[in-house]
Amino acid sequence: MDREELLALAFELKGGNISPEAFVNRMNLEPFQDLGEVKLDHNRAIRRGFAEIIYCPGKSEDQLRSIAEALSDRDGTFLFSRVRDDQMKILIESFPGIEYHERARLAAVVGPSSHDRRISGVTVVAAGSSDVPVAEEAALTAHYMGCDVRRIYDVGIAGIHRLLAHAEQLMESKVIVAVAGMEGALPGVVAGLVSCPVIAVPTSVGYGANFGGLSALLTMINSCATGVTVVNIDNGLGAGYTAGMIARQSV
Amino acid sequence: MDREELLALAFELKGGNISPEAFVNRMNLEPFQDLGEVKLDHNRAIRRGFAEIIYCPGKSEDQLRSIAEALSDRDGTFLFSRVRDDQMKILIESFPGIEYHERARLAAVVGPSSHDRRISGVTVVAAGSSDVPVAEEAALTAHYMGCDVRRIYDVGIAGIHRLLAHAEQLMESKVIVAVAGMEGALPGVVAGLVSCPVIAVPTSVGYGANFGGLSALLTMINSCATGVTVVNIDNGLGAGYTAGMIARQSV
Amino acid sequence: MDREELLALAFELKGGNISPEAFVNRMNLEPFQDLGEVKLDHNRAIRRGFAEIIYCPGKSEDQLRSIAEALSDRDGTFLFSRVRDDQMKILIESFPGIEYHERARLAAVVGPSSHDRRISGVTVVAAGSSDVPVAEEAALTAHYMGCDVRRIYDVGIAGIHRLLAHAEQLMESKVIVAVAGMEGALPGVVAGLVSCPVIAVPTSVGYGANFGGLSALLTMINSCATGVTVVNIDNGLGAGYTAGMIARQSV
Amino acid sequence: MDREELLALAFELKGGNISPEAFVNRMNLEPFQDLGEVKLDHNRAIRRGFAEIIYCPGKSEDQLRSIAEALSDRDGTFLFSRVRDDQMKILIESFPGIEYHERARLAAVVGPSSHDRRISGVTVVAAGSSDVPVAEEAALTAHYMGCDVRRIYDVGIAGIHRLLAHAEQLMESKVIVAVAGMEGALPGVVAGLVSCPVIAVPTSVGYGANFGGLSALLTMINSCATGVTVVNIDNGLGAGYTAGMIARQSV
Amino acid sequence: MDREELLALAFELKGGNISPEAFVNRMNLEPFQDLGEVKLDHNRAIRRGFAEIIYCPGKSEDQLRSIAEALSDRDGTFLFSRVRDDQMKILIESFPGIEYHERARLAAVVGPSSHDRRISGVTVVAAGSSDVPVAEEAALTAHYMGCDVRRIYDVGIAGIHRLLAHAEQLMESKVIVAVAGMEGALPGVVAGLVSCPVIAVPTSVGYGANFGGLSALLTMINSCATGVTVVNIDNGLGAGYTAGMIARQSV
Amino acid sequence: MDREELLALAFELKGGNISPEAFVNRMNLEPFQDLGEVKLDHNRAIRRGFAEIIYCPGKSEDQLRSIAEALSDRDGTFLFSRVRDDQMKILIESFPGIEYHERARLAAVVGPSSHDRRISGVTVVAAGSSDVPVAEEAALTAHYMGCDVRRIYDVGIAGIHRLLAHAEQLMESKVIVAVAGMEGALPGVVAGLVSCPVIAVPTSVGYGANFGGLSALLTMINSCATGVTVVNIDNGLGAGYTAGMIARQSV
Amino acid sequence: MDREELLALAFELKGGNISPEAFVNRMNLEPFQDLGEVKLDHNRAIRRGFAEIIYCPGKSEDQLRSIAEALSDRDGTFLFSRVRDDQMKILIESFPGIEYHERARLAAVVGPSSHDRRISGVTVVAAGSSDVPVAEEAALTAHYMGCDVRRIYDVGIAGIHRLLAHAEQLMESKVIVAVAGMEGALPGVVAGLVSCPVIAVPTSVGYGANFGGLSALLTMINSCATGVTVVNIDNGLGAGYTAGMIARQSV
Amino acid sequence: MDREELLALAFELKGGNISPEAFVNRMNLEPFQDLGEVKLDHNRAIRRGFAEIIYCPGKSEDQLRSIAEALSDRDGTFLFSRVRDDQMKILIESFPGIEYHERARLAAVVGPSSHDRRISGVTVVAAGSSDVPVAEEAALTAHYMGCDVRRIYDVGIAGIHRLLAHAEQLMESKVIVAVAGMEGALPGVVAGLVSCPVIAVPTSVGYGANFGGLSALLTMINSCATGVTVVNIDNGLGAGYTAGMIARQSV
Repeated sequence: MDREELLALAFELKGGNISPEAFVNRMNLEPFQDLGEVKLDHNRAIRRGFAEIIYCPGKSEDQLRSIAEALSDRDGTFLFSRVRDDQMKILIESFPGIEYHERARLAAVVGPSSHDRRISGVTVVAAGSSDVPVAEEAALTAHYMGCDVRRIYDVGIAGIHRLLAHAEQLMESKVIVAVAGMEGALPGVVAGLVSCPVIAVPTSVGYGANFGGLSALLTMINSCATGVTVVNIDNGLGAGYTAGMIARQSV
Repeated sequence: MDREELLALAFELKGGNISPEAFVNRMNLEPFQDLGEVKLDHNRAIRRGFAEIIYCPGKSEDQLRSIAEALSDRDGTFLFSRVRDDQMKILIESFPGIEYHERARLAAVVGPSSHDRRISGVTVVAAGSSDVPVAEEAALTAHYMGCDVRRIYDVGIAGIHRLLAHAEQLMESKVIVAVAGMEGALPGVVAGLVSCPVIAVPTSVGYGANFGGLSALLTMINSCATGVTVVNIDNGLGAGYTAGMIARQSV
Repeated sequence: MDREELLALAFELKGGNISPEAFVNRMNLEPFQDLGEVKLDHNRAIRRGFAEIIYCPGKSEDQLRSIAEALSDRDGTFLFSRVRDDQMKILIESFPGIEYHERARLAAVVGPSSHDRRISGVTVVAAGSSDVPVAEEAALTAHYMGCDVRRIYDVGIAGIHRLLAHAEQLMESKVIVAVAGMEGALPGVVAGLVSCPVIAVPTSVGYGANFGGLSALLTMINSCATGVTVVNIDNGLGAGYTAGMIARQSV
Repeated sequence: MDREELLALAFELKGGNISPEAFVNRMNLEPFQDLGEVKLDHNRAIRRGFAEIIYCPGKSEDQLRSIAEALSDRDGTFLFSRVRDDQMKILIESFPGIEYHERARLAAVVGPSSHDRRISGVTVVAAGSSDVPVAEEAALTAHYMGCDVRRIYDVGIAGIHRLLAHAEQLMESKVIVAVAGMEGALPGVVAGLVSCPVIAVPTSVGYGANFGGLSALLTMINSCATGVTVVNIDNGLGAGYTAGMIARQSV
Repeated sequence: MDREELLALAFELKGGNISPEAFVNRMNLEPFQDLGEVKLDHNRAIRRGFAEIIYCPGKSEDQLRSIAEALSDRDGTFLFSRVRDDQMKILIESFPGIEYHERARLAAVVGPSSHDRRISGVTVVAAGSSDVPVAEEAALTAHYMGCDVRRIYDVGIAGIHRLLAHAEQLMESKVIVAVAGMEGALPGVVAGLVSCPVIAVPTSVGYGANFGGLSALLTMINSCATGVTVVNIDNGLGAGYTAGMIARQSV
Repeated sequence: MDREELLALAFELKGGNISPEAFVNRMNLEPFQDLGEVKLDHNRAIRRGFAEIIYCPGKSEDQLRSIAEALSDRDGTFLFSRVRDDQMKILIESFPGIEYHERARLAAVVGPSSHDRRISGVTVVAAGSSDVPVAEEAALTAHYMGCDVRRIYDVGIAGIHRLLAHAEQLMESKVIVAVAGMEGALPGVVAGLVSCPVIAVPTSVGYGANFGGLSALLTMINSCATGVTVVNIDNGLGAGYTAGMIARQSV
Repeated sequence: MDREELLALAFELKGGNISPEAFVNRMNLEPFQDLGEVKLDHNRAIRRGFAEIIYCPGKSEDQLRSIAEALSDRDGTFLFSRVRDDQMKILIESFPGIEYHERARLAAVVGPSSHDRRISGVTVVAAGSSDVPVAEEAALTAHYMGCDVRRIYDVGIAGIHRLLAHAEQLMESKVIVAVAGMEGALPGVVAGLVSCPVIAVPTSVGYGANFGGLSALLTMINSCATGVTVVNIDNGLGAGYTAGMIARQSV
Repeated sequence: MDREELLALAFELKGGNISPEAFVNRMNLEPFQDLGEVKLDHNRAIRRGFAEIIYCPGKSEDQLRSIAEALSDRDGTFLFSRVRDDQMKILIESFPGIEYHERARLAAVVGPSSHDRRISGVTVVAAGSSDVPVAEEAALTAHYMGCDVRRIYDVGIAGIHRLLAHAEQLMESKVIVAVAGMEGALPGVVAGLVSCPVIAVPTSVGYGANFGGLSALLTMINSCATGVTVVNIDNGLGAGYTAGMIARQSV
């Protein structure tokens, strides 16, 4: 509830249109939907056309069913992230037209009033072929945010010429998501080539002293190239979402 | 054995009612029950009406059976925490009326002289729907300690209005258990709203750089809000037990 | 601002006593004092008689002066924690009667309407003589919260009889703050002896693999004794404050 | 050298205007300036009006002098970050009009063709008054990138009302830099309130188990609010620079 | 080969009884048995009556068979530690009379000239019933070293009276192995009660911030009680072996 | 593309033999093969007779098939590392003559023009029999690089005479790969005996505080013997490859 | 107080020689001396001729003076460990004949009834010359425990022949203290040569990834040689004390 | 002592030229020089023309003087690494012609029979100007090993064109030492460009989450480019020494 809405509400109260008790209740009850153990947050993002995201791990079948039921009445785009196979079955029951991307473990219910025009300028680069699932999670999230996403995969720094061959595409981007496991050096090299923000996604790809992605995370956090910011290990969704936010600002 | 009991025992010895050897034995043998590899600690807590707790992981079937046998003769409330399915079968044999809460993996044998009157003022808040199993372990433990527990779930800080909608309930509490995974920021925000102690429970919910709950634990330990104390990752039982201790003091 | 105050405010608005704009401003401006870079939080705690705490590290001289100036007009008890020597000089200028405890690096301005009657039941135990500064920070904080604090120092577990000699005092407490460095085992042993909450404070005392107190912190977090909760390394203030909160509930 | 320039160069070569040897040299020598141990990177950023940044720690006096000399012939804005006092003396000799911000340890040489018009929409929020130096480094960097920066300081989550009082300003921002030490929860709360990207800066402010800022870094990386990306501990410069990049895209 | 043997060998060489080439070979080939990928070390320990130990994890079936074959010709006591079920089958084929202790995952082939007389003074204490498998590995290892081992289990510090009830037995010991998981405080308390060496064994028992036993290891390494030394997490064998070494010195 | 090739290309352009557009394309397209999500890097190594390596974990069946198809047209030696069983089936279909080493999980397709003459001087030593799989990965990689590899296994430092018996062979080597888990001390001891480089490979063999090989890695990185360099935990391939590089320089 | 003393006390009580109140007091007051913030533990060790140890870091001047005063009336050997220069001045005032060892930062007050006859069999080995201060702390502690200590220094494993030259002396020992920093491999090699217990002392000597001694600590804890137990980083005192305990058992 | 020397010694013994006692002594006393607390290791390296290295940190003045005295009688090149200023004074007294390199903190005494002819092929690259001291330690060490060293500094990956401008020089090298702090990505990029071994040196340059160089170390250890091996943080000496070893093999 922003200042204007609050003012409006206050005027209604002042004019006697609503009681003080109703006023307090309105302030408390808006804008989420209480399903008991789950409180669905139809936040301002969705009103602006952003996709609403449901993070699936740890959700029980009952919880997921009540969420699906609550959403089925509403318009908008809903993303279900990190969906397990058994959870996917529940979702298909509620949303027969749901789009499922297996490698990225992402499912999408696309609302009727979804975007036709695509926002350009989002590029997703991935260091190795094993990083593709996380890269796809990022690319698809930005896609469902309304972006036209360019993908450049398997361009890790151990063969720098593969990356340089795409330098022009990189330089034309408005925002780049750079995904890498193992040593995680790709985002720093990319950021040195371009003048737009680079969102770095460490992955858990690797072994031994990669410590489940910690090594790549530290590399990216310590990057000496300006313009690099970092999200959690394997968090393609967060990177794609932020990339979508940035790209939309340029429109 | 406290000072008064020791004095009483000493007077008995002085008066010749018991022998010195018996005196020494009494001092050694009380107050636990030696089952060989297991030494059951019917400690002072149970004499004051607290529940006695048996932590089940790592217990062999033989050990658990001998514990059940020893307890079955006695009055009181017994909690079995983190019960595995195969262990639950053993418990049901010994205690047909045992109450089992699957999500919290907590089983309770409630004694005949259990509480009727409930102590109010314990609130359990949970950040996400995936944190509910740990939150339930806390809530149920406090319940079996004799408390009337209020639950507020899925009020994580990413949508602060969901929490603020329950600000009044939080402010009325005597003690709050705040359960959160991932970034673990909920307890600090709650503690800033209230003037009662907040017991923070980090959970292992999350992925990547959450390191099995370490991230949430560090967040809570570093909380700059006064009144926050912390228990081990996923330790709903410890939090609920301490909350029960604090609530009972107010009676 | 709690529900009652909000309702009252809403009735004033409804009755036309205040304008909607004033209503919104009142909601925004209360209850902190904006000094520019510092926003003094005269929170509800102080209205209930709790001490207000200013954490001094990192505060510039200018910031501290503006805080002192803002506080000097007001009633209440103010605690300045971890005061450096140069900061102490500034405080003495503003508050000639300030009480300074050098080992605990704690300074207190005690308001005229401060407590006469002391709340009993808070005990502070410390494992080693090097832990005394942190223990004193806890004890003094509880003292300025209105408690009568009992101190038991140098009773580490390497000579368990020293602790057991005070078992009776421990058992009479309503809440215990247990301070320990090195291996940090004291709180667990204490909690096994009593039936009240134990707030564990790890200290950075030790060397080598104590890693600045991390070892003691982990010991305490992993304590298998119920009733133990933990605060940050060397955080005597937080422990003393929470102990005061708990003790006051029993009144 | 982008595709167009390379094509142009190739046409010149084809036309015989330059020799193949010259062609190879041109490809090698552009676009940095080799000062021996230092290679000044006048990269594309500066040609687009971005500030050029010199990171000062570890630079010897000789190295810094040769850099200053090389820059003094050129137009543009130069930022010197984390300047030590002895380094500042060298800079003042070369650039009498240099602007120095002591708390942020940032010095700026502003070129004659610098921005008059300011880009709006960058907000810097800081959790505590001790975080101000890092927040100022971010705010000043964005300022020298041509932005009009709004500052909201001392709005940590332990008193959430201080932050909510500025909710409207936050919601109007195009990009927010959120700076916090200790538990580091501020960026996650802010991101839940707004629909623009939030760049999180952990600081080393705190003690004990904050591990020099690691705790705050982990909190922010694990944030469950979408739109949060993270930079290195105390890296106000990187956050301010990226914020400037994003804000400029909206123009 | 010690100085005396080398001298003797040198005299044989000098006297012409062996050739220089034979001399060099003798120096190289003694005293292990080369089975290709495995080199069996019949070291001096076994000649003094110590048990020879084969660590089984990671050994392939072929490797284990060739070891069993090589040992079957020889006298002495052989311990196989951490035996998997499939490995046990191989061992039973070669050594029908092998003694297998399932909980400790330890198998023993006892030679005909094994000890009749037992060395007294080794005590094994364990904090919880879940620590018993590791404690048994220690106790059995010391047993096969020729010791008469006393076991005191489930005497963790959360109920210190259980331990104190056995204080007399502890004080009579020549060496104590103290096994504990979770907070790992038992060895420090025991060492404060006795004047003999205490070998501390951290176990991986616990959850959350115990980090697979790291917490208990750090507790024990930081013990302020003199006389405590530590072995690896779950290394009952190493502790039992060292205890056997110490006990034998007292004979 | 090195300077000479670039010069040649430039001369062709200058002479009008190729168009500027073709020139730019040639610079971009060489020398890798774009299979979409995978970009095969037939780098300069293979042109000099080095084996080309495909790291298999995380590769999907589709990705692996497209790689196999691309390679089947070409000459050279290809190594597939860390092959899973299901991946091996795909490889056998494409390369019926593929050589598979199960313990090392390494498969090799040997080209017709492979080496006949073997380069001597590479020695692989392993501390324990459980380290053999990693040691074999190193030995086989060096073998396919054209080296004649000497293996010395189960010579850990707990029985130093086993290692010293092979001192002469160690001293004759040009480069040594030293593989060890647990405490990881072998490479340091070996380096003290020889005057050639020692490549240290920590393995994840061990338990408890070995932390998946971190302990051995730290031991090797901290080795005070000069000449020791280290690769990732269990990275036999990297060690064998580098050993091959060094041995070939001596020819 | 052992069983016999307690029985005797009980008989006195039964016989009416002492009152029950006195009985309780006796049980509580023995056997430590309460100096307020310090509780001097004249434990059983000193009655058996062991040295009593005062750990000096963190002790205030007042605390140290009260300790010195309390000790000056008593017989026995007192060790002051890790003494700072200013603390040493206080000790010299109280104990003019105090023996001070600067490198080991150890001071000793030797009682008149101290040992004449020395116990043989304790050997202290150190890997590097920088480890000598810690090694000396161990050697001197064992010396004041009544042992005749043999020192072998600068025999690190990077030149294994230096250690092997002393193999005979090592084999004759009853217990060995092995001190090493950096990679910390010395204790494992030593334990492979001997059949007595080896107490490993990691030191903080080294740099980079030694992490203040953590690397050496992990090496020693993971040692695959049986008979190795470990103390805290730089804890020469603990190692020397335990070595003295073991050596005395053999007399 | 290699096999040939041992055989020769054995023949002398057999022929009666030396006594068995002398034989044993010869085996023990060679080849190090015992200075008491220091044992100078004139190892085989120096006989082959390698420099002998004395690591100075932690050495007392007495230790250093006795080393200098022992060396002054001998021929050869001696390197003193990480020399402190006060240590340098002692060295200058003993070796007036000593060459001192202040940034690298390396001092060298060059023997009369030192190398005239230089071995080519060693290149040292450094990512930033702050890494130069470590890079110089590597370059100078290789220089004193007899190599002609090429230096390429300030070519970090944030401006990849700076590195590519030197691609030709890199490709011509026989071995490359790559030095980098912060994110530490340089060695991986370099290794992708060349077909010779790359020795990676992480430095402690950076701040925040670089954890004193740990981040760069992990990056390098996880490098997916083949041919990269790693030394300790800031260990320029070890890298330069190994590079010298490899370069000499090619002669």
